[in-house]
Amino acid sequence: MNATLLSFGNELLLGRTVDTNTSWLARELAGLGISVVGATIVGDDLASIRDAFVRAAQRADLVLATGGLGPTGDDLTRQGLADACGVALVDDADSLRRMQAFFRRLGRPMADINRVQARLPQRAEALANDEGTAPGIAASLEGAKIFVMPGVPREMRAMFLARVRPRLVRGGNVVLAEMIRCFGTGESVIGAKIADLISAGQAGKGPSVGTTVNDGLIGIRIAAEAPSESAARDAIEPVAETIERRLGDWVLGRGDTTPSSAAAQCLLRANATVVTAESCTGGLLAKMFTDVPGSSAWFLEGEVCYSNAAKIARLGVPAELIESHGAVSEPVCRAMTEGALRTMGGSYALALTGIAGPTGGNPEKPVGLVFVGQGSQSGKSKTALEGGSFNCRVEKYVFPGDRATVRLRAAHTALNLLRLALKHR
Amino acid sequence: MNATLLSFGNELLLGRTVDTNTSWLARELAGLGISVVGATIVGDDLASIRDAFVRAAQRADLVLATGGLGPTGDDLTRQGLADACGVALVDDADSLRRMQAFFRRLGRPMADINRVQARLPQRAEALANDEGTAPGIAASLEGAKIFVMPGVPREMRAMFLARVRPRLVRGGNVVLAEMIRCFGTGESVIGAKIADLISAGQAGKGPSVGTTVNDGLIGIRIAAEAPSESAARDAIEPVAETIERRLGDWVLGRGDTTPSSAAAQCLLRANATVVTAESCTGGLLAKMFTDVPGSSAWFLEGEVCYSNAAKIARLGVPAELIESHGAVSEPVCRAMTEGALRTMGGSYALALTGIAGPTGGNPEKPVGLVFVGQGSQSGKSKTALEGGSFNCRVEKYVFPGDRATVRLRAAHTALNLLRLALKHR
Repeated sequence: MNATLLSFGNELLLGRTVDTNTSWLARELAGLGISVVGATIVGDDLASIRDAFVRAAQRADLVLATGGLGPTGDDLTRQGLADACGVALVDDADSLRRMQAFFRRLGRPMADINRVQARLPQRAEALANDEGTAPGIAASLEGAKIFVMPGVPREMRAMFLARVRPRLVRGGNVVLAEMIRCFGTGESVIGAKIADLISAGQAGKGPSVGTTVNDGLIGIRIAAEAPSESAARDAIEPVAETIERRLGDWVLGRGDTTPSSAAAQCLLRANATVVTAESCTGGLLAKMFTDVPGSSAWFLEGEVCYSNAAKIARLGVPAELIESHGAVSEPVCRAMTEGALRTMGGSYALALTGIAGPTGGNPEKPVGLVFVGQGSQSGKSKTALEGGSFNCRVEKYVFPGDRATVRLRAAHTALNLLRLALKHR
Repeated sequence: MNATLLSFGNELLLGRTVDTNTSWLARELAGLGISVVGATIVGDDLASIRDAFVRAAQRADLVLATGGLGPTGDDLTRQGLADACGVALVDDADSLRRMQAFFRRLGRPMADINRVQARLPQRAEALANDEGTAPGIAASLEGAKIFVMPGVPREMRAMFLARVRPRLVRGGNVVLAEMIRCFGTGESVIGAKIADLISAGQAGKGPSVGTTVNDGLIGIRIAAEAPSESAARDAIEPVAETIERRLGDWVLGRGDTTPSSAAAQCLLRANATVVTAESCTGGLLAKMFTDVPGSSAWFLEGEVCYSNAAKIARLGVPAELIESHGAVSEPVCRAMTEGALRTMGGSYALALTGIAGPTGGNPEKPVGLVFVGQGSQSGKSKTALEGGSFNCRVEKYVFPGDRATVRLRAAHTALNLLRLALKHR
């Protein structure tokens, strides 16, 4: 079984919105052994929408379309599908009742304009939307199954999982993929270490192995096609273990592991807690820790000491230190790390001070310069708010890229230092 | 002039990576008056890549391709383009020298595997990469101009702006688009308020007007095609001003305005500063403030008081208050807001406490419940670290969605409360 994906919306062709639905659906379909033969973006034009449905249905067994189900006049997907099927749009009473109930739950009146969302092509079937107003549509065209879902990613995902996925017959082979996430070196270094496995995959002598890079995080994808899920897993697992053995400390983990979830796992395993003191990253590091559900078990507190006054008042950084070395310096980062451990407790602390840009750099201290401190309580207490001695270590980096990139790399690097400290403690 | 976009990479077809390059390039091309007639994703297969180049070149005047220029064995774009052009790959000495210099600057040796990145189809031209190793490629095929760029967004964007954009002849009409960003109501309410303008655009009686929604932020796109940039602007501007007048307080601003940049502008205009106290958002709010370059002018400090101990020790929230009402409650949020103003100074403070989920909810306090506090110093001092009286206001919300959505909505809502307080002070 193969599939074509259609994304509707001028905002996509004009580049005003990033189409994340295609990648999400492609991943879901890959897991079902359904290969995506094409993904097309179509503008808000009735004839183009109609033609896209017809062409997609001729080309594949399954068409998954997203977008253009909203209540406003530029939402033409319903009419386009009706035109492709050669039928009229009709009111769907069930959908209308569901929408009215949705607005009642929100405590808002339903605008008249929303009524159009309850119209469907004749003989088509509504797919209930648990997360929003617009119902989806299931239809048939040229022997292909058509499913239309809202463009809002949250609504689309919920609808796909609850209403569309169960209807997709599992035919033929299963394609399974595993992902190993790495951090701390470049894609070419990793590529060289596993070049033989990539070649073997290309020659059909093993699972396919490929690398991707995103914001300094390297992903190694290992995919196999087999008659059953367990056969695919048996093909993937030895290769995955070989890669993990070769890459050692660079490996963060499997699947959706991030630098923060990897650090969180190490904290949990060590029954340790962490606090943060951030200047240049401005809360990003704390945000990453607390992205992980259950983070209150290991994350106690974070201080975003953006001003010098905050560094002094909150973390006890000596004002003289800032005066003589500057806020972006090794001694200030060390004082921030120790101050975090002293004032906030926590068995571990991370501290960051740097120049994220775009301005504020100079030849001696360029944009991208970041000091990252990592420290731990020397004593045994997990939350000692007083006490003297800490083990601290400060590293100096110069990260390339714009403000957002520098901040992201700095936060990832801090998380990685913590992970390695916990791993090798 | 029209264009086709090609994105290469199994990671895209398997959904392991989101293709942000298509939307970015589409937006750039729209600004040049070049319409995108199609965007296709192609897997890492030599024949598919070759065929995709040929078909794209037959279909449009311009082909912009991204991805598959890395050093590893699954990077087949160079060979695929050479095959499509019916030529061989040859070494490009200039590109090799540039790459060696790039690695010298990084202080790392260049791996042998990288040498393949300096190979180009015969008669093609290298496009220097200022941000990474892989050079891009300029070539001709079937009368179309072909430009191949790296898949890494940062490298692609820099290369497009520096090397590709200057070569695209501006032919015919200019398409200009303006975006108005809104927050605080639903897409259908906004759609109803501007339904006449959407209809007029569809009837060709004015610029095209359409709405998009992303994470609760509503975008209104107004686009016009005209012989000159100034003529397009003259068509757009009166409509944009009508929309802004009708939507009033919901309007955040134009272009790339975000809730944080809108709040930042109000702070700058009022010569005011802000501090934050975050529980459920865990640093996200501070991160959003400091996303904005120059934020040290208005953002002083943020406290991520994730544990109850931190709320008590750092912000002076009375322990009894937490015991009797729970950490997620109106009185605790009020005490956090006042504590932030008292201990961190700042003319304004925002405080958040809530249940982001996925667990921790109960019938009385469900997942998604968030209290948002907004306060200001009653006195005149901008940074009074002591002092008694504050103006505080706490609002209660129940946000739908998963952990990330709840946190995002909560932070956006806090930023919006601050913006409105500053606007109407």
